[in-house]
Amino acid sequence: MTKSRQVLFASRPAAMPTAANFRIEEVEVPEPGPGEVLVRNVYMSVDPYMRGRMREGRSYAQPWEVGRPADGRAVGVVVRSGDPRLAPGDRVASMLGWREHYVARGETLNKLDPAVPLSAYLGVLGIPGFTGWYGLKEIGKPKAGETLVVSGAAGATGSVVVQIGKILGCRVVGTAGTEAKCAWLTKELGADAAINYRTAGDLYEALRRACPNGIDVYFENVGGPMLDAVLRQINPLARIPLCGMISQYNFEVPEPGPRYLFSMIGNRALMQGFIISDHMPRYPEFLAEVGGWLKAGRIKYEETIVEGIDRAVTAFLGLFQGDNTGKMVVRLGPEPA
Amino acid sequence: MTKSRQVLFASRPAAMPTAANFRIEEVEVPEPGPGEVLVRNVYMSVDPYMRGRMREGRSYAQPWEVGRPADGRAVGVVVRSGDPRLAPGDRVASMLGWREHYVARGETLNKLDPAVPLSAYLGVLGIPGFTGWYGLKEIGKPKAGETLVVSGAAGATGSVVVQIGKILGCRVVGTAGTEAKCAWLTKELGADAAINYRTAGDLYEALRRACPNGIDVYFENVGGPMLDAVLRQINPLARIPLCGMISQYNFEVPEPGPRYLFSMIGNRALMQGFIISDHMPRYPEFLAEVGGWLKAGRIKYEETIVEGIDRAVTAFLGLFQGDNTGKMVVRLGPEPA
Repeated sequence: MTKSRQVLFASRPAAMPTAANFRIEEVEVPEPGPGEVLVRNVYMSVDPYMRGRMREGRSYAQPWEVGRPADGRAVGVVVRSGDPRLAPGDRVASMLGWREHYVARGETLNKLDPAVPLSAYLGVLGIPGFTGWYGLKEIGKPKAGETLVVSGAAGATGSVVVQIGKILGCRVVGTAGTEAKCAWLTKELGADAAINYRTAGDLYEALRRACPNGIDVYFENVGGPMLDAVLRQINPLARIPLCGMISQYNFEVPEPGPRYLFSMIGNRALMQGFIISDHMPRYPEFLAEVGGWLKAGRIKYEETIVEGIDRAVTAFLGLFQGDNTGKMVVRLGPEPA
Repeated sequence: MTKSRQVLFASRPAAMPTAANFRIEEVEVPEPGPGEVLVRNVYMSVDPYMRGRMREGRSYAQPWEVGRPADGRAVGVVVRSGDPRLAPGDRVASMLGWREHYVARGETLNKLDPAVPLSAYLGVLGIPGFTGWYGLKEIGKPKAGETLVVSGAAGATGSVVVQIGKILGCRVVGTAGTEAKCAWLTKELGADAAINYRTAGDLYEALRRACPNGIDVYFENVGGPMLDAVLRQINPLARIPLCGMISQYNFEVPEPGPRYLFSMIGNRALMQGFIISDHMPRYPEFLAEVGGWLKAGRIKYEETIVEGIDRAVTAFLGLFQGDNTGKMVVRLGPEPA
């Protein structure tokens, strides 16, 4: 038996979630039986989409059950194995985050390449990076010379979108909420301009200065006033992949939306929502392309690492304050040797 | 020389246009020279999109020039011809509406089929019908058994969309602003339900009752609260062709938009604006299909006919009050024999 702490989902929030919506408990994890493995999680992911899982009712992701452990993406190492295909020390990804150890059937886990840093599978090479790659390429369809605006540009998904935009030859403008993030976007990731939405004042004017040729693609992560400011200066045939609207997730009744939606008519613009789990068959293609850019040094990434399962909730809540640059991950234990 | 009255565009309105933005003048129209024809307009079109032409600056349609005659679609008969391809009595369509007579080069006019009622070329078989057909089929992509909601359903475009939706096997729900229009939608055009947005109260509840299986396609003509109520009950993979947003055209600063735009993400919905002038090569295909349905009695149409050029402005302004059922046209003179 192995002792493991795990985070329970204790109650559904009405608006902004708090630490009181979670509770940590210690449980005994049994020994793995035949076909099973015992895994020690090394990193777990906290993601904005998990806010949706705190709600009851129809959604694209299964709601978390009150009184049960939360779950989500995690990467770890096999400790003991009853599955001949997995050996102690092997690295695996699962949907069994928010806990230190677990036992699962071996066939439900993905074995990972030990040459890749383990945490990268939660960010740049994980679902956030895949989301950015898919949404930009398949809905945004950027062409060289076009202007791409990315909101939440310093986040796990946005930072990948910014860099793919540059690789594809676009003028790229990112928006973020601190000077440090903006500096990272322009100095490290190669963005042509960055806008600090907290200090920019008139977002329309700030975008107009940063996008003298208008906006062809807007990769939407935030919602709210930024979308409206963008809609006023989209170019004909603009494309708007809707990836997230983090500014709206914690309102019981969402805020009023963009005044300038009708600008989409005269500009024949397209706006399309997408959910990355619909497109998992494309994951290997993403891994080959973005993994290649990563190895070639053409894609960089950053992580905001929070230590320990007792700070997992703090890390999750910090997403809504913009506490992260790049991917927010929680380290649950030491890196494997 | 022929005397002709024409409507001048006199000044740009800030918000709701009024009669004071126009002025009628009488001019002398010269005799047609070689290659030219003198045409007497029989019907002229007034359309919501013309509100956009009253604005200065970048738009998909050329702004009207202050002090010059307004223009737009019209149908008439050739009076005298200097073009061997056109004979007196021939019926022609032009962009030279808002005037009783004009002289133009013959090759700039479209010769019309005398077997089709002349005014139909301004509505059901004209740009409004073509707009509905294209937007529904190419962006809405309705499938049999799906639920289609059409706003502005009793208008020139909406009424065509409703009927094509029924022909394609959809459950069709139309919205309009009077009981008479709603009765026309259900009793004459075959809509499964109609909602009077002025008296329905909670639009979300009204739509929920009318669309027990959610909404797959929303053909948008009006904007404002209807779009928001729709977004709260779209189905996965919903499609929203944006044709018009007449409720917003007369605001100097448009109203706040839909609160529930983020519903597009979880539902992977698509919203796309379009401008029918981009798609004129498809017009013959439309004419064949919808013209065939019209002859077969499968498509019906209605017109709201206003008499005389001195009431053209009244007819135009009436569009924003919903004065029309079906196509609003202005009769400028007697039907040809």
